[in-house]
Formats: sequence, structure tokens, C-alpha cells
Amino acid sequence: MMRIPSLAAAGLLSISLGSHSLGQNAATYDLPEEARATAQELMDQGLRSNLAWEIVSSLTTDIGPRLAGSDAEARARGWGARLGEELGFDRVTIEDFSIPYWERGKSRLVMSSPYELELYATALGGSGNSQGSFEAEVVYFRSVYELSKAVDESLAGKIAFVDGDPMVKSQTGAGYGPSNQRRRVGWQHAERAGARALVVRSVGSSSHRFPHTGMMSAKVSGDDDAKTWARIPVMAISNPDADQLRRLHDKGELLRLKLQSEAGFQGPVNSGNVILDLVGREKPDEIVLIGGHLDSWDLGTGAVDDGAGVAITTAAAALIAQLPQRPRRTIRVVMFGAEEVGLLGARAYAHRHGDDVSKHVLATESDFGADTIWQLVSNVNPDANPVIDAIARLLSPLNIVRGGSNVAGGGPDITPLALLGVPTVRLNQNGRDYFDLHHTPDDTLDKIDPQKLAQNVAAYAATAWLAAELDVEFRRPRTTE
Amino acid sequence: MMRIPSLAAAGLLSISLGSHSLGQNAATYDLPEEARATAQELMDQGLRSNLAWEIVSSLTTDIGPRLAGSDAEARARGWGARLGEELGFDRVTIEDFSIPYWERGKSRLVMSSPYELELYATALGGSGNSQGSFEAEVVYFRSVYELSKAVDESLAGKIAFVDGDPMVKSQTGAGYGPSNQRRRVGWQHAERAGARALVVRSVGSSSHRFPHTGMMSAKVSGDDDAKTWARIPVMAISNPDADQLRRLHDKGELLRLKLQSEAGFQGPVNSGNVILDLVGREKPDEIVLIGGHLDSWDLGTGAVDDGAGVAITTAAAALIAQLPQRPRRTIRVVMFGAEEVGLLGARAYAHRHGDDVSKHVLATESDFGADTIWQLVSNVNPDANPVIDAIARLLSPLNIVRGGSNVAGGGPDITPLALLGVPTVRLNQNGRDYFDLHHTPDDTLDKIDPQKLAQNVAAYAATAWLAAELDVEFRRPRTTE
Repeated sequence: MMRIPSLAAAGLLSISLGSHSLGQNAATYDLPEEARATAQELMDQGLRSNLAWEIVSSLTTDIGPRLAGSDAEARARGWGARLGEELGFDRVTIEDFSIPYWERGKSRLVMSSPYELELYATALGGSGNSQGSFEAEVVYFRSVYELSKAVDESLAGKIAFVDGDPMVKSQTGAGYGPSNQRRRVGWQHAERAGARALVVRSVGSSSHRFPHTGMMSAKVSGDDDAKTWARIPVMAISNPDADQLRRLHDKGELLRLKLQSEAGFQGPVNSGNVILDLVGREKPDEIVLIGGHLDSWDLGTGAVDDGAGVAITTAAAALIAQLPQRPRRTIRVVMFGAEEVGLLGARAYAHRHGDDVSKHVLATESDFGADTIWQLVSNVNPDANPVIDAIARLLSPLNIVRGGSNVAGGGPDITPLALLGVPTVRLNQNGRDYFDLHHTPDDTLDKIDPQKLAQNVAAYAATAWLAAELDVEFRRPRTTE
Repeated sequence: MMRIPSLAAAGLLSISLGSHSLGQNAATYDLPEEARATAQELMDQGLRSNLAWEIVSSLTTDIGPRLAGSDAEARARGWGARLGEELGFDRVTIEDFSIPYWERGKSRLVMSSPYELELYATALGGSGNSQGSFEAEVVYFRSVYELSKAVDESLAGKIAFVDGDPMVKSQTGAGYGPSNQRRRVGWQHAERAGARALVVRSVGSSSHRFPHTGMMSAKVSGDDDAKTWARIPVMAISNPDADQLRRLHDKGELLRLKLQSEAGFQGPVNSGNVILDLVGREKPDEIVLIGGHLDSWDLGTGAVDDGAGVAITTAAAALIAQLPQRPRRTIRVVMFGAEEVGLLGARAYAHRHGDDVSKHVLATESDFGADTIWQLVSNVNPDANPVIDAIARLLSPLNIVRGGSNVAGGGPDITPLALLGVPTVRLNQNGRDYFDLHHTPDDTLDKIDPQKLAQNVAAYAATAWLAAELDVEFRRPRTTE
């Protein structure tokens, strides 16, 4: 009772109020029956649909790995645009932008003392070039925190090896951030202390002999926030290889490594976002944005990261495109480019659409693998929380539970929009096994279960359609400036 | 009742017959109480012992990969001999022999059409050298059977790719043999049909992006059984990579590969067997032989294949070495060399010990990974089967069941001895996950569970000690010639 007037007063909940559309309790909201039935039908179709599987199969097979800025990523944009046309989207746009191009090149890392052992290693994104091969003694650090205490020039001529604890596996992926510090900022400490190279234990929960790549953090300095990247080569080794180095170190062996890496930045190249729109029948300029990212790391074929997200959201929108009429608002699928190398596509999108940012009524990305969704979280106008609650109730037969109403980031590529005030939801996937595959050569199509993918499609189709169809305001009122 | 006289008459079961040493039923046999108690104590100690884990940790860490004929294999022999001395064996011997040395060298396999994709590939053992890099069109075969029908010279200038069905996983490893044909003999068909190279889907059940290496079969011909090896390069690609080629082929794409392999045979080099003896107190020339193989493939560190077997059997004998007295017969641990490249150490052993072969009363090898033992099978004088039954009853609390009495091969390195009539048992391990790791880079220490290893040690210690202590004849009577 308390909130209905405030909703109405603010014009936030201007739904046609049928007899059953609002519950007895003011803080609850029931979906209008017709909308509920359509959303249910989308869910049922999603569960039966093989479309997402076909999309991710095509993307990973016909295009393969899609490093940001590469020819393959450009081919993927063409693929995405053709797909959008075939699936009946109303408007297909490619928005190019320029990025600095980092390429891995060939690399090799061999333990040369106490004996010769080829290590399973790869360069980290942003790594420098070794300028040929060199051999050096290893200085062992138990953690990046220990490395951070190394005094200036104390590592001159040496290779720093940063070990670490195994990454904690969790449904939410909470183990990733802390593990990730050695990958993100380790190079800044190593370079300051004069090391010739840095080798880190792979981030990730895989016990398989794959190194885990990923972008390092640039050093930002000066008034113009100029970015500085590593001059030294930085590589990650697989967990079993790191175990081996740790055991040998603990036995008191002197470790030496022979390192070669051709990695480095090259000139600026094109990347781009592919935008597929189902234009809203009543409010075409109001946008419900869903999507994933089109680029991938080059080691695998980018199946779980993020072929799955592109496939899930495109398939969900394609189901909506089959309905007799478009929803009130526009549903926009964005296949972001250059996510892996620093959310460059997301930043380009936010920059280009800065003037329209207030037209984005809700945004969410699928970028956490291909496992089932277990939770719906949100970050919207509090007055619209009962609507999100109602969507969650609808999704509950999919084994999805309502989570926090003030916590959703929306996904990596949504971050720049969220920072500009765009409301977000997130359909949280089970991430327990995600970091076994993420950023490794093992991120391939065979790791995806088509039935789990279909559950995702069902949830996205219902959620996106309801957000676009219901006359509900998810945006927070603008504060007067 | 029927069989006691025959056992006694043949002198096969000349045990001191205490009141409880034979059961009421003639076909049953109870272990003498003192022997049973000692064997039980060995089992208890085995379950508590960390020794096998320490041995396999040392072998894989201090030596690492141990390709047959390599310097590393030679270092492993020194390691094995030192270990035998430290553990109190009575006699430590290294028996050298010469082998042809095959080395992998560097290799690279890239799909160059329909687009560029680095494949996860490795040379198969015995593969030829590509003499630089070349690119060629792929001819796809669904199976090695299909390849076998290719007519002579029909593949001239082409690369044959042999796909296959996924390997069936089973406790017994029964899926391996059939899958293995494409690895074993594929090259003979490809070469006959004029192919420039052969690429096969990896044998093995791993869904990870690792290729599976292993020896091909030499072509044997002429009166002198001369061996011919592949002149062409032969490589295996990981299952996910094979899936990718299959999907592209099924879509009608023309596949091209760029291949480079430095693999090839080099001059003869030394390998060797390490022999650790606990000399029997009454019948020192009668031998109960247990063991594993010391060499490994070079991609992993040879943890499950076969560091585990070396560790299990050495640790079992080391427990026996701690008893107040030696058993009646000699217990011999053989760490075989050059198993992976054609049982060359086993053949050298059988050749060198040909005159003493009748002194080997029982032989068995641990070479099927590091999972728990679930079954005891045998192949001994049928009159001694009741004794094997009694040993199986003793082992049953370890979750081990009695299997066939006429089926044991004894293990790969026991084959040459078994063919000469040496009786065998086998403590069958659960092999369901073995071929996820076997012959891949992923065969590393972290895959071994110390508690499962301890169960193996318990079973080997009790079995070997009983076979050496009981005055039971496992050998079949020699037929008069």
C-alpha cells in the first residue's frame, strides 16, 4: 500500500492495472496474464531450441579463435552481421573502433636447471618481447605480495617466478579476483625491481597442463592517464608446471629458465561491435540491451568465453523475433569486440552512445561460460524491484533463484554503461568449473552442454522480452544538476 | 578331497600342513596363521605408508620425463639404484642393453584452410621427419579401416587424416586396443597409398586439448623379421582438434594442413633395467618378480605411466625388507627400461635371464596408473589356484575381488616371461580414467592420490611376500621334450 502511490506518482509503474496485476501486498507485483503467458511460451521454446548451440558451433568452427583486432575478429563481425540478417533482426549495424593490437607470437619456456624440462607456458596479454632467447636464474616468490616487497634493482638480470595458492573454486567465481593479482600487476613490481622477465603460476582452477592467458593491467600515470605496458616478457605456466618448480625450489635446487617470447604491441587496428536490433513497436528509442563479446583469446576457440554468451543472447532475441509483434521497446543484442584486451568495445559503445545512454532502460551481458543460470540479481530503480521479483518467480521452474536487488554489475561489457547509470540485471551462471577452461587452449566447443545452453536461452528470452514489453520504468529518476 | 593327493603327489603344495592350513574342502586353502598375520601387518603398514608417494614424487620431480634411451632415463637408472641401496635391498644391479633411439624433436601442425588454426599435435613414436615444412590437402577417413581400402598411390601428395569414434571408457581399459589401431598401423596404409603424412585423432579418452603419443608398430618382413619404420611423418591431434576438423569436413570445407616434424630415429643408445633384490633366506635362486617401468614418454613427467608402478612395487618390497627375516624366496623388483618403445627392457631381461627363466616362480607388473586395485587375476598352476583364492580373501578388505584364474598376462613387461611359461598374477587397477592422462602432457604428479597409491602398496606387499614365503609351487610342471 505504501509504495503503489509512490510508483504511480513517479510514473515509474504505469502498467494497465488489471484486477490481478498487483497483489494484495503493495510490495508485490504480478505479471499481467497475457505477458506471463507469452514469457512462459518463450521459456518453453527456449528449452526446446537448439539455436544457441548451432550459433556457438558455427562461431567456433567457421571462425575459430578471434583475437581482438585480428583478421579472425573481423571475419567474426561479418559472421555476426549475416547471422542477424538471417535471423530476422530489423537493423544490423557494425560500429568500428580502433585498438592497439597485441599479438602473442611464438614463445618457449624451458627449465634449464636442475635439468631440461619444457614448460607449458604462454605470454600474458600486454607482455613484452624477449628480443630473442635468454637464460637466467630464477628468484622464487611465494606470492605477488612477496614480490611487491622486492627492493629496486634487487632482481637485476634475474627471472622472477611468482607462485601462488590454488584458486578457490566457487559457484560465483569469487576465487578469480584475488588469484588474478599476480597476472594483473605482478609485472609492475618485477619491472621496478629490475627483473628481466616475470613468470607466474597460471590463474585458474585447472589441474590440467594448460597455461591461462589474460590481460595484464597497464600502469596509468600522469595527468592524461597515459598507459604504460610491460617492457619485459611476462608468461604464465600451467599449475602442474608451477607445482614442479615449487617442489624443486623447496628442495633447495637452483632454478634456471630459458625464455623466448615474440609477444608485443603493434600498430593500431580495427575492432568493432556488431549491433542487432529488434525495433520496439511503441518506444523504438528505448533500449533493452543484452549481449556477449565476439572476440576471444587465441589459445582456444572461445567457446565458453564468450561464444556461449553471444549464442545465448542472439538465440533469445531470435525467439522473440518470431513473435507476432515486436515488444514495446527495442531489444538490442550487442556482440562486443575487443573485450579481452580491456573492455575496448564496451568503452567504444558507451562513448558513441553517450548521448543516448538514458535511453538504455536495462542492460545485461552473458559472459560467464555455458553452465546453467542459478540466480537473478539486479540493480534497478528500487520501485521496480517487485517486477524483477515477479520475473524471478517466473524463472524459478528453471531452477533460478532471486538474488540481491542492488548488486548486479550486469557483466564486464556493461560496466561502462552501468557507471553512467544504466540499470542492470544479471542472470548468474554456475561458475564453478568456468576457470578450468577460461583463457586456456581447452576452451573449445566440446565443453558446452546444449541442454544447459537452452536453459540460458529460456531465461534470457523471457527476461529480455518482459523488460521490453512491460511498461515498467527500471531507470532511476535523474537527479537534478 | 580329490585334489589334495594330486597336489601332494606332484609336490606342488608341499606346505607344512598345520591343523588349519587346509580347509575341509579339498579345493580350499587357508593361509597358515603366522603367514596370514604377517601379510595382514604388511597390508596395514602399506595403507599407512607414504613411501610410494615419496618415490613417485622424487622420480617425477628430480628426474622428470624419461624418454627411453635419453640422458634422463640414464639418470633415472642411477636414481633407482641409489633408492634400492637406501631402502635396504640386498643386491642392486643395472643391466644395460642397446636400443635404437627415437626422438620427437620439434613439430608444428597448422590448419591453413579454410582458415589458420594452430592444432594441438604431437609426433607418434617411430614417426619420420618431414624434412622441413610442407603444406598439403587433406583426405579425410572416418576410420583406419576406411584408410586401409585406399588404393595404392591414391593419396600421392596428400595428407591422410584418420578420424575415429570416441574411445570407450571402461574399468578394464578395454576401449584402448581397438582405438589404438589407427595409431599402430595407420601409417602402413597411408604410406602404401602414397600419402605425404598421416594425422590421426588421438587415441585416449581425454576431452582436453592434449594429443596422445605412443609407439607405432613396425612393419616386420623377410626371413629375418626385419623391422621397417615409417618414412613419412605421423602425428596425433587432440580430440577437440579432431572434432573441429570433422565438423569442417562435414560442412564440405576443403582442409589443408601445414606440417613440420623433426621426429626420427638416431643411432643406437644405451637403456637398462634396474634390479633390486631381497635375497630369499631358503631358496635364493627362486624369484618372485614385481616391478614397473622406469622410462616414460617425454610429454608429461611419467607419473601415472609408470612412476606409480615403480613406486608401488618398490615401496611394497621396502616394507618387506623391514621384516625380521627375508621370505624363503627372493623378491625382485625390476624397474624396466625402454618399455614405451616396444617392451625393449622386458625382452632384454627375458633374453639375459633365459637360462634362469624356470627360477621365476611368479611375476607381475604394476603399469596401469595409480587408481585403486579392484581385482586379482592369475595364471598359475591350477593346483595353486586355492592359494591365490586365499590371497584374494586376505585382500578383500581392500575392496579387491578374485577374478579369473587363467587370464592374467602379468603386465606389459611380463609378457616375454609369460610367453616362456612364467606364472603370473595381476592386481588390476581401475583404468576408467587412465586414458585421460596416459601418454599426454597431463601425466603429472598432481594426478596421483596418495591414499589410492597406499592401497596398491598394501596389496602388492601382502601378495609378493606370501608368494615368496609360502612353500607353494605356482609353476606348471614342465612337459617332457
